[in-house]
Amino acid sequence: MARWEPGARERLVLAACDLFIEQGYDATTVAEIAERAGVTKSTFFRHFPDKRELLVAGQETLSRLLAEGVAEAPAGATPLEAVAVALRRVSDAMGPVNRELGPRLKAAVASSAELQERDALKSVGLAAAVTAALIARGVPDPVAALAGEMGVLAFKRGYAVWIEGDDPNDDLARHTLTALGDLRAASASLG
Amino acid sequence: MARWEPGARERLVLAACDLFIEQGYDATTVAEIAERAGVTKSTFFRHFPDKRELLVAGQETLSRLLAEGVAEAPAGATPLEAVAVALRRVSDAMGPVNRELGPRLKAAVASSAELQERDALKSVGLAAAVTAALIARGVPDPVAALAGEMGVLAFKRGYAVWIEGDDPNDDLARHTLTALGDLRAASASLG
Repeated sequence: MARWEPGARERLVLAACDLFIEQGYDATTVAEIAERAGVTKSTFFRHFPDKRELLVAGQETLSRLLAEGVAEAPAGATPLEAVAVALRRVSDAMGPVNRELGPRLKAAVASSAELQERDALKSVGLAAAVTAALIARGVPDPVAALAGEMGVLAFKRGYAVWIEGDDPNDDLARHTLTALGDLRAASASLG
Repeated sequence: MARWEPGARERLVLAACDLFIEQGYDATTVAEIAERAGVTKSTFFRHFPDKRELLVAGQETLSRLLAEGVAEAPAGATPLEAVAVALRRVSDAMGPVNRELGPRLKAAVASSAELQERDALKSVGLAAAVTAALIARGVPDPVAALAGEMGVLAFKRGYAVWIEGDDPNDDLARHTLTALGDLRAASASLG
């Protein structure tokens, strides 16, 4: 399983997080982010369209991996089994770099209303991607929409546990799949 | 059940929607919105902090009504029964003015990435409000989080049907409660 490439891109994200937390999102310029990361401004713009997109740049990759996971689940898989394949696929693509970035991303997003909004839109986009992939498998709409929301909820809950843990070799898939199992069990006690 | 007060506030929202659709969100000023609505700029600022908040100004009211509905459900209500009380409460507070605004709000939000982001954050806020109200009733966390997401999904799905229908006296509660029933049924076929 390919891991996200480390290098200039991750240094830029780390530098941006630190600057956003230190001096605020509004006050931070692309030039400062590039300088802190030790790259040129044109390198910044080869990776990101602007400073806001930088913190959600993984969204398209996440959406693609989730949709591929759903599509590649065995033909007889239930909707939540397909979501579990998607969670394993996206979790396996996130390694130590993502785990190290996690708490800084979280702090940076928490520091800016604008970044919180962008982050909320990211969740909506991920749920839409999973829902569309389930519908493409023939899952009927309300089931697909619910399973899509549960997949994203499981990812967010598992990711939150993962980035707060102490073990640097901890496996994200374990946490996202546990969270999905918890939500599946929860669905039985909704009334 | 009190309906949202019509008047300057609704005229401002209507004017803003129309201007955003006609000439774009970025190009529209508060002065233009106030002029189109036939009020002064200071009247605008008595109702809204800025043009962006205008389109999601009902969010606090929605969150409060949803949380009150959950809190006031009978002691023995299941999580989804409490969510149904919340949906009825918030649906009953929305009348013909909201129904008339709906399609224009939808078109305005669709026209601007910034408004889409703000709208996504609104969904996240509503789900958090329902989840917190359920936890306050003693519903355990994963069940509360799932029921909160389902409540917001039911509201959005029912609202979308309501604003697209032909009957001006149509009842929003009928659609949101039908959507919740569909999601409840869907949860049985998740696998």
